[in-house]
Amino acid sequence: MKKFVVHELLHHTLMNRPDSEIVSGPVRLTYEKMYERILRLADRLGRMGIGRGTVVGVMDVNSHRYLELHYALSMLGAVIHTLNFRLSGEDLAYTIRHAEDEWLFVWDGFAEAAKPLRRLVPNWVWLSEDAEGPEPGTPTYEGLVEEGRATEPQSADDVDETAPYSLFYTTGTTGRPKGLLYRHRDILWASLQMAHHLALHRTGASVRSDDVFMPLIPFFHIHGWGTTMFVPYLGAKLVLPGRSGPREQLELIRREGVTWCNMVPTQLQMLLGELEEGETLPLKVLTGGSPLPTGLARKARARDVSYSLIYGGSDQLGASIAVVPEGMDPASPEADQILATRMRAMPMVEIEVRDKSGSLVPRDGKTIGEVWVRSPWLPSGYYKDPERSEESYVDGWFRSGDLAVQHPDGTLYVADREKDAVKSGGEWIPCGVLESVLSEHPKVEAAAVVAKPDERWGARPLAAVKVREPVEKEELARYLEERVKEGRIAKFWVPDDFVFVQDLPVTSAGKVHKAALRERLGLA
Amino acid sequence: MKKFVVHELLHHTLMNRPDSEIVSGPVRLTYEKMYERILRLADRLGRMGIGRGTVVGVMDVNSHRYLELHYALSMLGAVIHTLNFRLSGEDLAYTIRHAEDEWLFVWDGFAEAAKPLRRLVPNWVWLSEDAEGPEPGTPTYEGLVEEGRATEPQSADDVDETAPYSLFYTTGTTGRPKGLLYRHRDILWASLQMAHHLALHRTGASVRSDDVFMPLIPFFHIHGWGTTMFVPYLGAKLVLPGRSGPREQLELIRREGVTWCNMVPTQLQMLLGELEEGETLPLKVLTGGSPLPTGLARKARARDVSYSLIYGGSDQLGASIAVVPEGMDPASPEADQILATRMRAMPMVEIEVRDKSGSLVPRDGKTIGEVWVRSPWLPSGYYKDPERSEESYVDGWFRSGDLAVQHPDGTLYVADREKDAVKSGGEWIPCGVLESVLSEHPKVEAAAVVAKPDERWGARPLAAVKVREPVEKEELARYLEERVKEGRIAKFWVPDDFVFVQDLPVTSAGKVHKAALRERLGLA
Repeated sequence: MKKFVVHELLHHTLMNRPDSEIVSGPVRLTYEKMYERILRLADRLGRMGIGRGTVVGVMDVNSHRYLELHYALSMLGAVIHTLNFRLSGEDLAYTIRHAEDEWLFVWDGFAEAAKPLRRLVPNWVWLSEDAEGPEPGTPTYEGLVEEGRATEPQSADDVDETAPYSLFYTTGTTGRPKGLLYRHRDILWASLQMAHHLALHRTGASVRSDDVFMPLIPFFHIHGWGTTMFVPYLGAKLVLPGRSGPREQLELIRREGVTWCNMVPTQLQMLLGELEEGETLPLKVLTGGSPLPTGLARKARARDVSYSLIYGGSDQLGASIAVVPEGMDPASPEADQILATRMRAMPMVEIEVRDKSGSLVPRDGKTIGEVWVRSPWLPSGYYKDPERSEESYVDGWFRSGDLAVQHPDGTLYVADREKDAVKSGGEWIPCGVLESVLSEHPKVEAAAVVAKPDERWGARPLAAVKVREPVEKEELARYLEERVKEGRIAKFWVPDDFVFVQDLPVTSAGKVHKAALRERLGLA
Repeated sequence: MKKFVVHELLHHTLMNRPDSEIVSGPVRLTYEKMYERILRLADRLGRMGIGRGTVVGVMDVNSHRYLELHYALSMLGAVIHTLNFRLSGEDLAYTIRHAEDEWLFVWDGFAEAAKPLRRLVPNWVWLSEDAEGPEPGTPTYEGLVEEGRATEPQSADDVDETAPYSLFYTTGTTGRPKGLLYRHRDILWASLQMAHHLALHRTGASVRSDDVFMPLIPFFHIHGWGTTMFVPYLGAKLVLPGRSGPREQLELIRREGVTWCNMVPTQLQMLLGELEEGETLPLKVLTGGSPLPTGLARKARARDVSYSLIYGGSDQLGASIAVVPEGMDPASPEADQILATRMRAMPMVEIEVRDKSGSLVPRDGKTIGEVWVRSPWLPSGYYKDPERSEESYVDGWFRSGDLAVQHPDGTLYVADREKDAVKSGGEWIPCGVLESVLSEHPKVEAAAVVAKPDERWGARPLAAVKVREPVEKEELARYLEERVKEGRIAKFWVPDDFVFVQDLPVTSAGKVHKAALRERLGLA
């Protein structure tokens, strides 16, 4: 590649591994074949008026068409807006208006949900399986590919690394989603550094060019956590799951020889749930979005699944990923626990944990502070939102609003979103730790801890528990008291009360929606 | 790191692995301690007038002082000119004048050789072991470190990724050395991509953060092939060999637990020569500068040394490194051979093999063409040398003047420098292959093939052979004929004659100096 722009990645891939496969539903492509389709698409879209700075919304599950759009739009100097289809209709419409999308590319499978969006944009393309779309007169993706010429558009040479490339929105639980507009170099750098981090260190989610990748994180989450870029960069085989449930995903893993996946803990739980008694699943999993409960981590290890926890976010891109510290035996139980909880900053990233006054908290593994992040790909603020930018982007740092402790070896344990945390008697209670410990109880399936207003302490923790089989509150309290004796949790963290729930509300990113839970429990 | 500049690397290192060691002769430092010394040095040098754009020559063996200068000069926005002390005195003086060095930092060990350089620069510092230098009145490095304050200089924040950082010269065997001025981003990128390549693929010289590194390639060769940057980036333990012979290097490897070295094949030969009968040396070696003879590669494997061949150069930085192709058993003899001969372009690098007309030669593993290289860190030309730049830097590509074949899988076999190659009857003869095959003969220590003018064929190969024990020319000819039958070499490659030599002349980079050899043999 002569320039650090997204579509240039493919030049290296084509030289080294043109025959590597991309599998997407019934479609099997090679990088060489896909490149030809990308050229055709770019040519056709260019002639339809998509060019430098055009904002193009895409609403699709992880498919080869979505992947191709990433590269074709790069060649045109256009901006890809990856639509979070799990947002409410209202928020989704808001992001389309805020992004000023001129085009929408929508998968047939979302036809119903996308209906109200139609009037918001002047141009519409159906991401149909074939050249015939759901309605005559509206162009289809495969039709456009057929009509294009396989020559690199002139514009491909003019795109600069500082040109805007990618636009996506946070799934904020308070207020409207916030937009992030990244330049080619930012999104490329963060994506590739993820792969580099996972190759340079010992970790449960190690990456090498002979791995077979299946991203289960939707592309609207930071491009499937960078996979749309770093997998082609490696020239590795890529399996795209489309709309699939855990059973189909398991079948794909077996059939295509998948060795590496990313997913949120909820997806991991569901995938493991599909396994037969005693069946194993040799797989490397990068997981994050919410803490990995200890109980789930143990279950994974028992099934031969190795893992590593990532912490990052749309507003800063990748920041830190758990690795086995140098000198520690990677097969030890200690290493297992670290890979589920303690993260090391990605190379080039600096992370600081600061108190309210902005001073660093001691690296003692105990003192809780706020996570501040700095990296060469950090944006200067939210897209068209100076007010909220000013709060979060300060002096070249991003203040995350997440609470964490830093260990003496520099690793990070992220406990909570600050607004979800419980402050009791002036001290933070890391709900994530409590939830993880509770999840280890054999009768508990999942737990979420929220703040209950308290006259004396300001707030006290309340645990919402989803059970596998009935259990007494007293048993849970006794169980936690034993963990206090072991030193795993502090005495004042033990919730004053437990509430049994049928289900925990989750956000579109698969995290427990604490605000909705508090509301449901009458605490908001 | 907030910017992609050299000294910013250390911020990540200090956060993650402040206690990792740097061992340099009797000195043992941590990154934290070294950082303090770098700050003191930068502060003192800044107050002495070294600042943005000041060109500072350094003439030292691989030491912690040399490493520290890399970072202190970066903080000041200065340019580090790494002096190739193996150049002739005349060429060395030429590079100092051409670079317009304002300062020279010279190790005591070079005092005698450096005498004639003294009058070429206004400012001189002795890189002595202690604050007392060889002569009163001339500042010493340790004296400056002692006098400095440990605060980051103001200038450190102003250095931009496009600022010039590093200047070094080729060891051209014809004409004056050519200068290359690299910017922070270029040299950082190329260096880090070397580490990334060696982590992302299966290779004999794999890199991970828990490796212990000892660069035997001098820092004047592209900063020890990037190690001054990528080892601190990993926060890994670094052992600096100073001026040492193979015996001392072997001792260092054993004592400090070194797992990774870089060196030219000659150094590897010498290192293996130090081993006792039956003794093994578990070590990963990145080697290059000249082809790795098959005989030497076998010897290395037999001693537990794994290896990988790198191809690159001062005028393009790293370009390609041998890796085991995906799907091949890394423990197979086939993999061993590939790691010694066939290279894959580093990620982000494109390599093309072209014929005289500029067309790509077929990827058939047979057709010889010239290597053209493109990467995001490619310079636009030689420093202050538009004429020679124009020949070598064409349309954003670097034409290397090296001859190679490309295999169907995209890997590269580099046969020769074009000017060293033999063209016989209109066909190239890859001397590197012949030399490698000859080196496998038990009585041959080393061989070099050069062109002998021939009336009928234009040129015919002549082999200069250094023997271990006496051998008849006929025996060598018969031996090669057998290799022809095996299909390893073509019939017309077999040299018409052999000359026995006591020694082969080598360049300052440790390669056989073909021009000098031809002259010695009366062929020039």
